[in-house]
Amino acid sequence: MIANSDNTSSAAAPQPRIALFPGSFDPFTRGHASIVERALQLFDHVVIAIGYNAAKISHDDISRREATIRSVYHDRRERVSVISYSGLTADAARDSGACAIVRGIRSVKDFEYERDMADINRQLSGLETVLLFSLPELAAVSSSLVRELKALGTDISHFLP
Amino acid sequence: MIANSDNTSSAAAPQPRIALFPGSFDPFTRGHASIVERALQLFDHVVIAIGYNAAKISHDDISRREATIRSVYHDRRERVSVISYSGLTADAARDSGACAIVRGIRSVKDFEYERDMADINRQLSGLETVLLFSLPELAAVSSSLVRELKALGTDISHFLP
Amino acid sequence: MIANSDNTSSAAAPQPRIALFPGSFDPFTRGHASIVERALQLFDHVVIAIGYNAAKISHDDISRREATIRSVYHDRRERVSVISYSGLTADAARDSGACAIVRGIRSVKDFEYERDMADINRQLSGLETVLLFSLPELAAVSSSLVRELKALGTDISHFLP
Amino acid sequence: MIANSDNTSSAAAPQPRIALFPGSFDPFTRGHASIVERALQLFDHVVIAIGYNAAKISHDDISRREATIRSVYHDRRERVSVISYSGLTADAARDSGACAIVRGIRSVKDFEYERDMADINRQLSGLETVLLFSLPELAAVSSSLVRELKALGTDISHFLP
Amino acid sequence: MIANSDNTSSAAAPQPRIALFPGSFDPFTRGHASIVERALQLFDHVVIAIGYNAAKISHDDISRREATIRSVYHDRRERVSVISYSGLTADAARDSGACAIVRGIRSVKDFEYERDMADINRQLSGLETVLLFSLPELAAVSSSLVRELKALGTDISHFLP
Amino acid sequence: MIANSDNTSSAAAPQPRIALFPGSFDPFTRGHASIVERALQLFDHVVIAIGYNAAKISHDDISRREATIRSVYHDRRERVSVISYSGLTADAARDSGACAIVRGIRSVKDFEYERDMADINRQLSGLETVLLFSLPELAAVSSSLVRELKALGTDISHFLP
Repeated sequence: MIANSDNTSSAAAPQPRIALFPGSFDPFTRGHASIVERALQLFDHVVIAIGYNAAKISHDDISRREATIRSVYHDRRERVSVISYSGLTADAARDSGACAIVRGIRSVKDFEYERDMADINRQLSGLETVLLFSLPELAAVSSSLVRELKALGTDISHFLP
Repeated sequence: MIANSDNTSSAAAPQPRIALFPGSFDPFTRGHASIVERALQLFDHVVIAIGYNAAKISHDDISRREATIRSVYHDRRERVSVISYSGLTADAARDSGACAIVRGIRSVKDFEYERDMADINRQLSGLETVLLFSLPELAAVSSSLVRELKALGTDISHFLP
Repeated sequence: MIANSDNTSSAAAPQPRIALFPGSFDPFTRGHASIVERALQLFDHVVIAIGYNAAKISHDDISRREATIRSVYHDRRERVSVISYSGLTADAARDSGACAIVRGIRSVKDFEYERDMADINRQLSGLETVLLFSLPELAAVSSSLVRELKALGTDISHFLP
Repeated sequence: MIANSDNTSSAAAPQPRIALFPGSFDPFTRGHASIVERALQLFDHVVIAIGYNAAKISHDDISRREATIRSVYHDRRERVSVISYSGLTADAARDSGACAIVRGIRSVKDFEYERDMADINRQLSGLETVLLFSLPELAAVSSSLVRELKALGTDISHFLP
Repeated sequence: MIANSDNTSSAAAPQPRIALFPGSFDPFTRGHASIVERALQLFDHVVIAIGYNAAKISHDDISRREATIRSVYHDRRERVSVISYSGLTADAARDSGACAIVRGIRSVKDFEYERDMADINRQLSGLETVLLFSLPELAAVSSSLVRELKALGTDISHFLP
Repeated sequence: MIANSDNTSSAAAPQPRIALFPGSFDPFTRGHASIVERALQLFDHVVIAIGYNAAKISHDDISRREATIRSVYHDRRERVSVISYSGLTADAARDSGACAIVRGIRSVKDFEYERDMADINRQLSGLETVLLFSLPELAAVSSSLVRELKALGTDISHFLP
């Protein structure tokens, strides 16, 4: 019998389950949007966290990137928020009250990279990393590829949410 | 029997979030126990679901396997239950009220196998598969290896929960 | 400017370019059909070659498998033929007048298997192997998975051509 | 019996089958030459297409690279041509009248990269990508490695055609 | 300064460094022979250790396999010996006085398998596993492939030492 | 200075077996230290060889890096030495009198990179490369990750020997 613990006294209302979805999102693609969508089936709230290197990108550029992603989730802003951070992912997760990091994996290369990151994040903060497979039809859509196509003058709207 | 708690009253009582953890668990190793432990940080309830081929294993053997695993989680039976099934994993998940399938991945080989399974389960039932990396120090511990070591007379208690 | 060599004397009409597509095709899936379709963009003719182990399968079963696949390509029987063989793939290719073996690859596991096979076939017969990536949305569809789903009573028509 | 369709009226002389072999070829190695050689067994004509980033390399450098490769195939210039392009590979393929892109794969890393590229090219232009395995004894020979050896003063002629 | 420790009193002559090379060697291929050859550059002695499942193969068959391999190394029997064992590899290594297990790796699949085995053997016995890459031109030569080719009536002498 | 000891007398004095452990070691991590430790079980002497690009790093920086590593092995300086080199690894190995190159592998990505390097080094110098698996709990610890963590202000002493 599965019973959701007898919260008769409502003092201890169950905490919302928050996942941090970190990335550089340069740009935020349909592949990323698909991960957010599916993470919302598993968590109460998803924090999209734009990691950046303060030495390489201006504050304005990051603000714009934040605003762009935020506009995508305007109608669901109660369940999806957007932040940016320049330090450790583990710290961003703790500051957001996240119980897990969520990441999409598209390939073996991703798999090995994420494994190392997950291991280090677990060592540094005890935080769990949850992986979702990218949808097969979106697996080829990486930010770097979209950037490259854009630089060549290709219409990339098909790859964006 | 897993019943999605009788929320006769409270309009807004959030449903418990249930994950199905399918496998053959022959035997249930420390690697499996680690996945259950970590899934409990993300879900309210984990259903350990022993998949079996009715033509290859007796009802008694499956009952014993169920009982062994159940005893491991006796103290937490409100959050961990054990079932067995001989059909589709997607059906077992639906019957359990699970919102996701959870699986551990240890290697590239696992990664590709799980990707195909996740894709098919998504196609068949819309159900999401969530992956957790096995802990590095447990990555080599597979059921098949433990069975082989046991057949050679090695003490395998170190690999069991 | 690309000019095809001046075949002024037409006695030597160009030979049709034939590819052998070997496999066990148990069953022949939409994934296989996609490879045939795309190979027809590259070759004049595709020979679907059912490899079998004479000790493990009856002549009748192979005949039926041949007939099933043949019926799929009935309207294009001038460009797609179906044979079966129990020996070396390299021999089947030579007997069919094929200039290449064509195979689909879905995963890293396939990649390494095909690499070894291609290397051995090149050593044994000088024959080249040409690879096509499976379409992403079909990458999870393997014959073994389809067989397993069928054994569990699932409707598999969605996975067949 | 395999018969190529009765082309009794010769008005429709079969079009030469052209493959585009894109790369940066910096430098063009024995590994590349081996792919050209084997592609010529499958296609009537191979267009070696040097992709470049106009912002990073001078017109003169590209012209030199073109000339070097062209000299390798001087005796077969009717079947092998060399071009350079700075835009999309898919566009270069269309402009060349190619029915397929051909690429060599040496490793799992290549496999995943090529899979993404092939998928995007199929989405952008419907063009098929055909893969050939590098010969085992040439699998370690990449342009970047050859460049590095050259920078260290090693004689690299052994790695060039 | 590298000095081989001051063995002034020669009672303690340095122990020969022995490596165990375990496998089923069914059959012993040129790929295996290449590993032995190269291991002899690193160790004083190589023990080829045929692992077998006593329930699946007769004592006579194992004796024959031992004899066949032994005959290959007859001229170097002072540095290469052949044993068979049906228990743990770690035990066979200890009984042989080996300071390391040596294995060849041909592929990613091998890599992951060997990693698990090495990890378990280190846990069980503290024994180190040393890996050598198979030579590229021998990477496709596995025992299972050679067995299959033999079953199809192919001359396999090219793949044997 | 590494001198292959002047065995003027003793006809039979076995030569010390020296392994070269090349890398950039920026920084030298616990992962590297673990490889040295385990290589010492197999070889008489390990030469830690810091490869550097003379155009990118100053002589002083390399000297400091050498000194740091040397201090780790001060108590075992008879069996572990530290050098730096800016040319071919194969040349550094020969100059050190090494009979093998030793490297740790952590992942499939490493595996493929090392395979290419080993193949080229074998072609250039006949030198063998010996691989040791990184310990599972250290597999995520790469120099690049440690550098990144340091840049973010994280205490990295846990990752250093």
